[in-house]
Amino acid sequence: MAADVESVQALPDDSAATGGRLERPRVAVTLGDPNGIGPEVVLKSVRETHRLRMAQPVIVGSAQVLRAHAVRMENSLPDMQVAASMPDRIPPEELLVLDIAADESFEPVFGKVAAEAGALAMRSVEHAVAMCIAGEVDAVVTAPVHKEAVSMAGYTHPGHTEFIAGLAGCSRYAMMMIAEGLRVGLVTAHMPLRDVPHAVTRESVRTGIRVVHATLRADFGIQHPKIAVLGLNPHAGEGGVLGQEETEVIGPAIHEAQAGGLLVSGPYPADGFFGAGIWRRYDAVLAMYHDQGLAPFKTLAFERGVNYTAGLPIVRTSPDHGTAFDIAGQGKARSESMLSAISLAVDIVRCRNR
Amino acid sequence: MAADVESVQALPDDSAATGGRLERPRVAVTLGDPNGIGPEVVLKSVRETHRLRMAQPVIVGSAQVLRAHAVRMENSLPDMQVAASMPDRIPPEELLVLDIAADESFEPVFGKVAAEAGALAMRSVEHAVAMCIAGEVDAVVTAPVHKEAVSMAGYTHPGHTEFIAGLAGCSRYAMMMIAEGLRVGLVTAHMPLRDVPHAVTRESVRTGIRVVHATLRADFGIQHPKIAVLGLNPHAGEGGVLGQEETEVIGPAIHEAQAGGLLVSGPYPADGFFGAGIWRRYDAVLAMYHDQGLAPFKTLAFERGVNYTAGLPIVRTSPDHGTAFDIAGQGKARSESMLSAISLAVDIVRCRNR
Repeated sequence: MAADVESVQALPDDSAATGGRLERPRVAVTLGDPNGIGPEVVLKSVRETHRLRMAQPVIVGSAQVLRAHAVRMENSLPDMQVAASMPDRIPPEELLVLDIAADESFEPVFGKVAAEAGALAMRSVEHAVAMCIAGEVDAVVTAPVHKEAVSMAGYTHPGHTEFIAGLAGCSRYAMMMIAEGLRVGLVTAHMPLRDVPHAVTRESVRTGIRVVHATLRADFGIQHPKIAVLGLNPHAGEGGVLGQEETEVIGPAIHEAQAGGLLVSGPYPADGFFGAGIWRRYDAVLAMYHDQGLAPFKTLAFERGVNYTAGLPIVRTSPDHGTAFDIAGQGKARSESMLSAISLAVDIVRCRNR
Repeated sequence: MAADVESVQALPDDSAATGGRLERPRVAVTLGDPNGIGPEVVLKSVRETHRLRMAQPVIVGSAQVLRAHAVRMENSLPDMQVAASMPDRIPPEELLVLDIAADESFEPVFGKVAAEAGALAMRSVEHAVAMCIAGEVDAVVTAPVHKEAVSMAGYTHPGHTEFIAGLAGCSRYAMMMIAEGLRVGLVTAHMPLRDVPHAVTRESVRTGIRVVHATLRADFGIQHPKIAVLGLNPHAGEGGVLGQEETEVIGPAIHEAQAGGLLVSGPYPADGFFGAGIWRRYDAVLAMYHDQGLAPFKTLAFERGVNYTAGLPIVRTSPDHGTAFDIAGQGKARSESMLSAISLAVDIVRCRNR
């Protein structure tokens, strides 16, 4: 670690004049599926982060794809430094593009589900995560991939989050959605609903609570975080009448966490929890499955949410939208969520370093 | 039917001066669990409906319970006519209380889960539904029961809705939540989450679509209703990667309905559907299970929602809150949702009669 820090500090762009790496963390930003809106929202938002000097973005993907999107947006490209590997020096006024597909040709077909597109997107993620593990960048922000394209490319992971956790060698993590004070973590994420009840175990709920608690402390700087846990069944099982998981699995996991001194409560019925504003009393909410947490989250914070993978050794965020193939290549895509994702990654890097 | 109409028209309170039964439908309102906020919100709202002359409420329950709540609310009771059975005449300026527990004593213990309370609540529902089937009232509005108390009383139905459908001899019905233009129907309602994937069949989705379609036409007066159907799995199965029900069950049921000329589309991923405002393009949304539909519904329309049981021969609504034992007997309960429930019941009665 000491060697890493030294080599970082030796980089010329870490002078006080241009902002040190702590003030302006290096964020690898992948382009996502080349046929979707990923490259467009990356271009729009890195220009902004660059202008605000809040991060030193490193775009990871195909420079050809990036250029094709820029042409469609009828927008000039910013000054770019295209490189095949991480250079010694990144001039702060330039945008670094790490071209992982310099030897091949890839012309986007906007809106097309294609194996090659899925493969290129996932290679970018692998590359960006490896750079982050090696300390070459401080965080990874991923543009959306298309699960079907990724699946056609032979990747068997159920989602971006699970794939990145695997690359980072991490089995205890949690997908979280963040929007200002609203933070929702998931015990299970990308799996068929019929598998959810089997995956909600005392161990997985315990892990969810611990990961969310640790991330609130380390990544959000909340010393004594308060966490609300939702039930699995309608009305949180209504005393056992509508399911046993609350009394047999979730309740005991909560009691165990409380016995360990954590400020955890629940299980709460999911349906009224968000509408009644009960979430405001907590630093985070732990939901049992994808739609239970994300449907109310997106209802409250549509296009303002950021996806964060809590529990990883690396910092990884992503916007809360998909590839939006229906509007790809039209210049219409909104980049607020991507910009928020980069901004949150920077905040977390700074919080971890404090 | 002709005989019913005749006997109704012969009632003295159906003169033009007091408002006929069509203009001022008779609505049986049950008190719900006597230890909860039910009697309080009923008292508060029937006073209002009475004042507005929008309905002729018939309170069904224990007069003793009603008086006990009125005392706690430090509020005088309106002029009441307490009767053991439906009288020939209801003076429009009086509030009719049908005392189904005149021979017994029941003193509320606010906040207590008790078998006797559950039993009294359910007897009121049975009574009110029987009156509606007999044509003595035009609609039934039910205050909340406590599922655990009801279960302790020996009732095995999973919910109010299922119980009432059983009383009405109806197997094809759907729980719906209504708030102005937002209408959400459920394919499955009060069952453990682990049973949901098995209960989402081509037949149950087909029934859900048909019931919602029929109710939009008959009860809401929408001639060519547009219905959106949600998926079961995260991302609506993402092309089969996250579950098969969308392609094997829900999709085919939608296609079948489309082939029958219905304006139905989907399956849509549930998480972004409400936040993105896609629901506004439809007259109703059909969700696959309780929390999937109700968590976003309540996030959008908290305390403004009304629960409606679509598909029944009788008209039945209820407020969207529970017994709220924590604030029972304190006079704090808000009655807007109960008032909306009565108002919606009146609207539906009028729409059906047109």
